[in-house]
Amino acid sequence: MRILLVGAGGVGSAFAAIAARRDFFETIVVADYDQAKAETAAATDARFVAARIDASDAASVTALCREHRITHVMNAVDPVFNMPIFDGAFEAGADYLDMAMSLSYRHPEAPFEKVGVKLGDAQFEKAGEWESSGRLALVGIGVEPGLSDVFARYAADHLFSEIDELGTRDGANLTVTDDDGNEIFAPSFSMWTTIEECLNPPVIYEKARADVDGGWFTTAPFSEPEVFDFPEGIGPVECVNVEHEEVLLMPRWVDCKRATFKYGLGDEFITILKVLNTLGLDRTEKVRVKGVEVSPRDVVAAVLPDPATVGPRMRGKTCAGLWVTGTGKDGSPRSTYLYHVVDNEWTMREYGHQCVVWQTAINPVVALELLARGTWQGAGVLGPEAFDAVPFLDLLTEYGSPWGQVER
Amino acid sequence: MRILLVGAGGVGSAFAAIAARRDFFETIVVADYDQAKAETAAATDARFVAARIDASDAASVTALCREHRITHVMNAVDPVFNMPIFDGAFEAGADYLDMAMSLSYRHPEAPFEKVGVKLGDAQFEKAGEWESSGRLALVGIGVEPGLSDVFARYAADHLFSEIDELGTRDGANLTVTDDDGNEIFAPSFSMWTTIEECLNPPVIYEKARADVDGGWFTTAPFSEPEVFDFPEGIGPVECVNVEHEEVLLMPRWVDCKRATFKYGLGDEFITILKVLNTLGLDRTEKVRVKGVEVSPRDVVAAVLPDPATVGPRMRGKTCAGLWVTGTGKDGSPRSTYLYHVVDNEWTMREYGHQCVVWQTAINPVVALELLARGTWQGAGVLGPEAFDAVPFLDLLTEYGSPWGQVER
Repeated sequence: MRILLVGAGGVGSAFAAIAARRDFFETIVVADYDQAKAETAAATDARFVAARIDASDAASVTALCREHRITHVMNAVDPVFNMPIFDGAFEAGADYLDMAMSLSYRHPEAPFEKVGVKLGDAQFEKAGEWESSGRLALVGIGVEPGLSDVFARYAADHLFSEIDELGTRDGANLTVTDDDGNEIFAPSFSMWTTIEECLNPPVIYEKARADVDGGWFTTAPFSEPEVFDFPEGIGPVECVNVEHEEVLLMPRWVDCKRATFKYGLGDEFITILKVLNTLGLDRTEKVRVKGVEVSPRDVVAAVLPDPATVGPRMRGKTCAGLWVTGTGKDGSPRSTYLYHVVDNEWTMREYGHQCVVWQTAINPVVALELLARGTWQGAGVLGPEAFDAVPFLDLLTEYGSPWGQVER
Repeated sequence: MRILLVGAGGVGSAFAAIAARRDFFETIVVADYDQAKAETAAATDARFVAARIDASDAASVTALCREHRITHVMNAVDPVFNMPIFDGAFEAGADYLDMAMSLSYRHPEAPFEKVGVKLGDAQFEKAGEWESSGRLALVGIGVEPGLSDVFARYAADHLFSEIDELGTRDGANLTVTDDDGNEIFAPSFSMWTTIEECLNPPVIYEKARADVDGGWFTTAPFSEPEVFDFPEGIGPVECVNVEHEEVLLMPRWVDCKRATFKYGLGDEFITILKVLNTLGLDRTEKVRVKGVEVSPRDVVAAVLPDPATVGPRMRGKTCAGLWVTGTGKDGSPRSTYLYHVVDNEWTMREYGHQCVVWQTAINPVVALELLARGTWQGAGVLGPEAFDAVPFLDLLTEYGSPWGQVER
């Protein structure tokens, strides 16, 4: 296996650090628009080489694949670049993996009721070509989407006879301090992507509505607030509906009556996002400011600490998981939360990467190892729930990062 | 009287429209960095001429004064330009008026307890030169500071024998709608200045502390929240301490135990300002964003509607006033609110300018007319409370915009 890793930011660098401890691949070409970042991440291991790439240009991706005889392209950049990387990999005859799907575009007339272009639509449109070429695009194989989707498959195969709701629930108790020890606001993930996710109309799936838009519909941002009690000491966090890939992926392979994604943003973050939206600072179109042109959302991201650098000043745990309700294998009602908790102190000590990017990055490494072994095989555009969950969960545990299960 | 109006923004343009109806001056030179803006404002009246000026350059101000034999320089730009305009006017032998004083700089060690460089300090430092030259710098003669300071003098001369607190209280019930009639967030005043005022440490005066920093001290932003019930249908609005000139001006000429300024920001605006501060979007130092350098605060101002253009889509009233408590002339306890309410519908219909900038602009026109008549006379750097309040309040009423008084 010869991997092209596109993107040496927070998640890409953590991916390199995790993969460096495994022997299932021959080489990883670490490529970034910023050659210096690629070189830093590539310095981890003798099997890594650094390269410069323009992820917005499919031809640049294809050329780099051919130059290094790449078998698998691992996309670790913002999803705005998904399509050129996806197309560039196909053109080069390589398989493809990402951790977020192609972008959605809201319904022009009823954005908070009906779906427009959905997350991943642009990729699923090309599923036939991938399948007939015998090539695999494994989409959404980070932690969420990714591990959450593996949990959905596991629940359907081993825990439930009938599923009412597949409810992804994500929460944390992370805090970041400045040099003087004062708590500061510092998102643990790309602020650009967080704004995109949280201010887009959240999408929900309901089987009963399958005759309309396939069962998918949208609501207003921050809808259906719910306090979810997260395990392993994290405790209760206010969660709201957020647009996320699980809702689009799970119902394609796992039978369920409803699929939701709620993100534990907490009060402060919700207020911040609402204010950015009220002022128009979430906008991506450039505005003219004293002689220069700049995107307001890029400015917001630029004034905040870089999520890749906050690790040493961060404390706490992050939890990704899937709350499944329905009927158990024994015929009685069941409510189970399948989860994965990561402590920032542990990831910083063990890997030198903060827990949120590390938790995202470990899952595609596990998936690539299963693909290298031939345990996972497939062709087309597939989500993680299209594969057997057990070998994935076992290998994740073998990597030293076990998952958990609790009845609720 | 030959006036140089520096700045043809919201307040400058309203000043021109109000002055156009009066006959106390010979000419007004309307000058702006943007010549087109100056020309638009100057088109109001045959006695007006347009000019270009660089308000950051004292020599440019002096040259323009000499070219047009200016007797009075009216500063209507952001207070960041105060000193070059103030110095340029002095150099040209002209009198000077402004509506906000030179900027403050926080105390380096205890910014939320002690004053550093106070509002107006840079101007008062030069009071001796102005006085010995027989020239007048009338500072803070907008509505707040300005009319509020006139009220302070009026209260001391005619209503109170002893004053406990001079509490400026500013509130409104203004709303702005978009083209579809939906309410939007659109500040009625310069967002840059609003951020400056509201996030700087608020200043308070207490006579009992006169041995420390002359009685002035600071608190944390948004301190001492208080719901104040504004007259003429505006109703209760949440007010908080804000750094403002009245607190620095009033105690210099009017004996009082305490002076405060509370601004009726309301919940939403307070939340917005806190979020901008949390994220660092209130910062003025430039940050690098994808190859360009930009000041975050300029970006915030740029994404919001221009306050000079929101008038037609604005509804409601704004109130500026002074709440005075103490002992009345008859020796019994007294609590009086002196105020000036302006309805946006009226200012738009009568003058084509929104109420907040119009209410700011009318006061320097009244003051200039009193100076032209010789009713007000003085030399040095003086606040509005250094002059007799009665002729000012009478002339304001004669302009068609009466003030009010209510016992509380």
